[in-house]
Amino acid sequence: MYTSEMKFIEKYKKIVRKNNSVLCVGLDSDIGKLPDKYKNKQYPQFAFNKCIIDQTHDLVCAYKPNSAFYEAKGVEGMAELKMTVDYLKSKYPDIVTILDAKRADIGNTNKGYVEYIFDYLGFDGVTVNPYLGQEALEPFLDRQDKGIIVLCKTSNPGSGEFQDLRTDKKKLYQVVAENVVNDWNKNSNCLLVVGATYPAELTKIRKIAGDMVFLIPGVGEQGGDVEKTVKAGINSTGDGVIINLARKIIFADNPRETATKLRDEINVYR
Amino acid sequence: MYTSEMKFIEKYKKIVRKNNSVLCVGLDSDIGKLPDKYKNKQYPQFAFNKCIIDQTHDLVCAYKPNSAFYEAKGVEGMAELKMTVDYLKSKYPDIVTILDAKRADIGNTNKGYVEYIFDYLGFDGVTVNPYLGQEALEPFLDRQDKGIIVLCKTSNPGSGEFQDLRTDKKKLYQVVAENVVNDWNKNSNCLLVVGATYPAELTKIRKIAGDMVFLIPGVGEQGGDVEKTVKAGINSTGDGVIINLARKIIFADNPRETATKLRDEINVYR
Repeated sequence: MYTSEMKFIEKYKKIVRKNNSVLCVGLDSDIGKLPDKYKNKQYPQFAFNKCIIDQTHDLVCAYKPNSAFYEAKGVEGMAELKMTVDYLKSKYPDIVTILDAKRADIGNTNKGYVEYIFDYLGFDGVTVNPYLGQEALEPFLDRQDKGIIVLCKTSNPGSGEFQDLRTDKKKLYQVVAENVVNDWNKNSNCLLVVGATYPAELTKIRKIAGDMVFLIPGVGEQGGDVEKTVKAGINSTGDGVIINLARKIIFADNPRETATKLRDEINVYR
Repeated sequence: MYTSEMKFIEKYKKIVRKNNSVLCVGLDSDIGKLPDKYKNKQYPQFAFNKCIIDQTHDLVCAYKPNSAFYEAKGVEGMAELKMTVDYLKSKYPDIVTILDAKRADIGNTNKGYVEYIFDYLGFDGVTVNPYLGQEALEPFLDRQDKGIIVLCKTSNPGSGEFQDLRTDKKKLYQVVAENVVNDWNKNSNCLLVVGATYPAELTKIRKIAGDMVFLIPGVGEQGGDVEKTVKAGINSTGDGVIINLARKIIFADNPRETATKLRDEINVYR
């Protein structure tokens, strides 16, 4: 039986096969870092994104703008974020779109974020922060058609401050993984964020999570290793990972060449 | 020696004295709940907020819009949020403004949020989520003049899922409180969010936190008790709390009357 609840994961699996890629390009289009030729355009972030997307659309499974780089520009930035996702949906509708927003609020307040991210902007998935618990995040989890990507073990150097705290026999990030896998995933729409900078933890979380898909940042500028990441992250169906690279691709001299190399390098270990 | 790092707290203490109030009005101006007379205005959320602010400005220490209710309307909502804070800053510059955004990302990415919330919108304080740790939140914590309000024990029913996990002898929320008090607060710009729905935990966190100021949601619709909250939350200088009420005031038949009653009720126990 087809259930609409599988939509995000189905879309992901389809595009992974079509483009033979688990590479995600992070559209972290920091206005201060854009090449000069974009800076004077009316919509510099959108123009830059469009160029990156047109060069890489057949090499990726997903695009993931981080909301912070657009919010930094206020109303204009938000408009360019919307233009970016509108462009993706109209020109490359097969590709998964994820807003990296790391949102979380209490119960009904989350409805505002849900409306903004899924209905107004139209993303396929969003990253959320687990600190407030499942009950608070229900408005996200209720969206059966979308991907709800829960921060588990984040890629930053200080992520252990709380995430590695030992609770009884397990660390907090392991409890987060277990709860998401066992309780939060009733609609089969949950994913986990696991940083490539922590391959041992990635291995542990893969054991907990079965075939659940992971969004994996931290390869590239942050120092995560491609081989270790793919080997530890891949699931039994040969996918189960969305490996995000941002600056290394989008600010490369030749984004297409760099994306091709990275996709192929990842595929060696799949 | 005067240090600019005390700005948020100084502004808070000044307005508490001036208005004899620790009441904060949550501008959770859900477009679906606005009275009909606002719905057809060009800027309905701003018009509604302006009316609430004009009726209550001498009764409060702070206003706290929750970003979700504005993001729900996309670019327009963001513009009305900016109009709201601009209005507050020009007409009632003494009053503390807090954006309830519960943001958190890795290191430099947070710079985008910092620019958006403090430089573009111009808020005095912001709520942040601790899950990624102090190192990730440095771009917020570096802003000595602003209030960085860290989620500790949130008011929602399911907040215990992770926040009450026992780590060695303490629960996670206690570790968060201790770390913020002992390590994060180098610039004396940190506050904690503690839900009024958990008065026993509030007492414990007050013991950990010395005179640190708490932002306290959960009185009113969520069921937190005013007397218990004030008695458990107040610090040695007779303030140290920002007690937020949103729907109960802003959607009251007479917001001014309701705010007056609540301020006075809170003051009985201060």
